[in-house]
Amino acid sequence: MQTELLIHADWVLPVDAGDATLAKHSLAIADGRVAALLPRAEAEAQIEAARTLDLPGHVLIPGLVNAHTHSPMTLLRGLADDLPLMTWLYEHIWPAERRWVDQEFVADGTRLAVLEMLRGGVTCFSDMYFHAEVTGRVCAEAGMRVLAGMIVVDLPTRYADSADEYLRRGLELYEHFRDHPLVRAAFAPHSTYAVPEAALARMRTLADELEVQVHIHLHENRDEVLQVLREHGERPIARLDRLGLLGPQLIAVHMTQLEPAEIARLAETGAHVVHCPESNLKLASGFCPVAELLTAGINVALGTDGAASNNDLNLLGELRTAALLAKGVAGRANAVPAQQALRMSTLNGAKALGLADEIGSLEVGKAADVVAVDLGDPRTQPLYNPCSQLVYAAGSHQVRHVWVRGRQVLRDGAPLTLDPASIIAAARAWGERIAKV
Amino acid sequence: MQTELLIHADWVLPVDAGDATLAKHSLAIADGRVAALLPRAEAEAQIEAARTLDLPGHVLIPGLVNAHTHSPMTLLRGLADDLPLMTWLYEHIWPAERRWVDQEFVADGTRLAVLEMLRGGVTCFSDMYFHAEVTGRVCAEAGMRVLAGMIVVDLPTRYADSADEYLRRGLELYEHFRDHPLVRAAFAPHSTYAVPEAALARMRTLADELEVQVHIHLHENRDEVLQVLREHGERPIARLDRLGLLGPQLIAVHMTQLEPAEIARLAETGAHVVHCPESNLKLASGFCPVAELLTAGINVALGTDGAASNNDLNLLGELRTAALLAKGVAGRANAVPAQQALRMSTLNGAKALGLADEIGSLEVGKAADVVAVDLGDPRTQPLYNPCSQLVYAAGSHQVRHVWVRGRQVLRDGAPLTLDPASIIAAARAWGERIAKV
Repeated sequence: MQTELLIHADWVLPVDAGDATLAKHSLAIADGRVAALLPRAEAEAQIEAARTLDLPGHVLIPGLVNAHTHSPMTLLRGLADDLPLMTWLYEHIWPAERRWVDQEFVADGTRLAVLEMLRGGVTCFSDMYFHAEVTGRVCAEAGMRVLAGMIVVDLPTRYADSADEYLRRGLELYEHFRDHPLVRAAFAPHSTYAVPEAALARMRTLADELEVQVHIHLHENRDEVLQVLREHGERPIARLDRLGLLGPQLIAVHMTQLEPAEIARLAETGAHVVHCPESNLKLASGFCPVAELLTAGINVALGTDGAASNNDLNLLGELRTAALLAKGVAGRANAVPAQQALRMSTLNGAKALGLADEIGSLEVGKAADVVAVDLGDPRTQPLYNPCSQLVYAAGSHQVRHVWVRGRQVLRDGAPLTLDPASIIAAARAWGERIAKV
Repeated sequence: MQTELLIHADWVLPVDAGDATLAKHSLAIADGRVAALLPRAEAEAQIEAARTLDLPGHVLIPGLVNAHTHSPMTLLRGLADDLPLMTWLYEHIWPAERRWVDQEFVADGTRLAVLEMLRGGVTCFSDMYFHAEVTGRVCAEAGMRVLAGMIVVDLPTRYADSADEYLRRGLELYEHFRDHPLVRAAFAPHSTYAVPEAALARMRTLADELEVQVHIHLHENRDEVLQVLREHGERPIARLDRLGLLGPQLIAVHMTQLEPAEIARLAETGAHVVHCPESNLKLASGFCPVAELLTAGINVALGTDGAASNNDLNLLGELRTAALLAKGVAGRANAVPAQQALRMSTLNGAKALGLADEIGSLEVGKAADVVAVDLGDPRTQPLYNPCSQLVYAAGSHQVRHVWVRGRQVLRDGAPLTLDPASIIAAARAWGERIAKV
């Protein structure tokens, strides 16, 4: 077999059906896809590669999927901390966004986010923000995979001033990136409390026609649930169910407030949950019952949320927090073991985003979204189990190489498609402007 | 004024009484102590320094204090995960320790721990382990500050086979390091369930005589409390109180199970609490009510616990987890704000260890235990508030320079007193030996 690149690694965690840990294996890439995954000796005998890369001490994993973020909010990182969700949102974040967010803000903020995520082994993210066409363009240029949100929110901005206008702009985005290999669109209604019901119903119809996912904040905290119950006489999940929105197209983010019947209903409909543990903790939103959701057979993925409520986009840190917190919340030290945390941040994310045929695991035929992590750092030595070291001990600086769709975007920790100095300079300039007010 | 070193930094977080954030300040070091902390212009006018170091984009903080760990357990990192405390301890960790722990194990494991901690900005730690005289020696050589535990535990090992023998060896340690500038000793009875009452009583008397702290695992989880209640008719805190051990000399580690009267009693006696959030989560031990303890006026410090239950010794990550988890547990997003998290991991640690006159804050006259963190990383840009970026977003790889007692031990991320290659080779050799069994 002839391939473009053959990578030899000490371990591969393919996130396959058997949760295998492969020692001394090699992964071949051709035409942007995984062409082979074999024991090294077999690979050397059978595969002719234009280039080989030897990575002793490294583990290969599928690219991490950040299933919920607001990438341009990197520019608001640390602007308002130690505040509850509604104060943070209504008094700090939305006013700043109304004042500052334009296409340039989105371009500069997305670039900073993509730089941070690629350096941390994230190869795909699901985004919800204004001017998502700019986010799509930045990702296309940087070689990053994105599910760009066709946002709808009851907040007049420079981007759009009504639900109809938000929807119209979203559909333009959809058309623009139709069939793009890296950029896809999903509906992204902000929440049931900040989107008119007519717009939710319209998205339901359109999502069916266009076969796209619907990405929404849902049951983020108690106040949200009580507010919707007070104003509409039903809990947010019940509203979505009535509107026909609970199903495998739904990416339901946060879900810290759940009754047993709601968990059963989510499982029955095949809706996906995105758990954002650090944002939920930081905003004191509540605890998502991750172990219960998994036991009920619900697909649970992981997200960082935006950098204004996290405050980083480090999914490797987030999957550690998720693995640790799930044990504390369930009261069981065997809840969400290391392999499951890795699965939540890769294959489960791909499933939630409707991309599981393409990404999420290292299997022959799937896109070559691959991350190499150096486990030779003092922090991950000695090594009894590579998955344990990755999940419970590795730092994001140990991510050394990243490929998206076979294209190398990070080499020895340095980005190949982005210029860090100019990105940081732009972020600084925004920070100075925003801080002055 | 003449000094050895003058450091110019964009920000200094001295952790002083006012939680100041100083911009464009300079810190002078002479004779191992902070000789001055001034606005840069004043420093340049008044101070003559043998050497100056300009650190644009960096923040200076006091060295982090890891108030509870078992440093040699780095060699068991990842050996047994996803198990509850008592299974993990009795079926995995103690058997491995009985088999493997000797002076060489302790020397190699401590070196790996000190390497990891210095690289992560930890300049002082409180340790509880066998052969603590070896830990003390390794720290003295590496220029690391340590409160070495005079351990006592009902577990016959090669180190000691009875409580009396443990105590005897502990006192030897005390004598050996008496008046050492970096190494001090504290009693370290493992717990009330694994130490005979007579030995606890004896340590009470000796701690008074020698004026040393007493470092103990206390109310780590529900089973521990119930077991002691069943066997002794009182909860562990009540036992210690009866034995006269509750007081400012007590370093009480974990404390996840607390009744209101116990919190009041702790506050009344001035006992210190060390919170180890990641270990508590990983072993599903319960949640320490950190915000309540702080409100009650109790001094709460932070620890990583050992690398077998964390699995890293990254206190910067731990203080983030502590800041986030406290909000979730208290249900208040303003619980443990960033400045308080930094205080818990510096000055509060120094107080717990009985070293607050010497370390824990950057104030003139205190020892120059100083850490410089580069906030220019994409992950901490833009920058509205250096303390927020440090606590909520920075990675341990952003720690660039570390001084302990005025001696530089880390320069540009590279250790000056330790040899990483030989330390990792030794750790690997242990890993291979232990994994083989």
